[in-house]
Amino acid sequence: MQHGYVTVIGIIAGICTTVSFIPQIIKILKTGNTRDISLSMYIILTAGISLWVVYGFFLGEIPIILANSVVFVLCLFILTAKCRGKSRR
Amino acid sequence: MQHGYVTVIGIIAGICTTVSFIPQIIKILKTGNTRDISLSMYIILTAGISLWVVYGFFLGEIPIILANSVVFVLCLFILTAKCRGKSRR
Repeated sequence: MQHGYVTVIGIIAGICTTVSFIPQIIKILKTGNTRDISLSMYIILTAGISLWVVYGFFLGEIPIILANSVVFVLCLFILTAKCRGKSRR
Repeated sequence: MQHGYVTVIGIIAGICTTVSFIPQIIKILKTGNTRDISLSMYIILTAGISLWVVYGFFLGEIPIILANSVVFVLCLFILTAKCRGKSRR
């Protein structure tokens, strides 16, 4: 039973950290502005998340692969938007 | 040996996703601007990371606790800076 609670906490934690990037994408789509967002942050973060996907593949852990693949796509969107914003200036 | 490689990939992935928030903090400290950063993103992300710390405590997993505690402090800094920026307007 206690282990069940811990798993639920882990699942909620995973959902939070995954969906958290969606409001940033919505904000970018609404305003078109990415000036205050750090390019380096999203380069390092996207690289790190892609390594988590590779890590998940090696371990054969579907939850690690799935969760990080979603975050990877979201971060890649923000990174692309940031690069486009930079090239426009 | 193969497991060793996988662990190294996991460690590099963890370091990347942890330190990635530092460039964003440096950018905020340099410019003082947080307009384009999503408040909702950092509220949800900080909540999620704090749940990962709780999850780590329940499992007694020091790496989960340590890595997420560092990210928690970094995200809390960005969240506080964003809230201050909002209240100034």
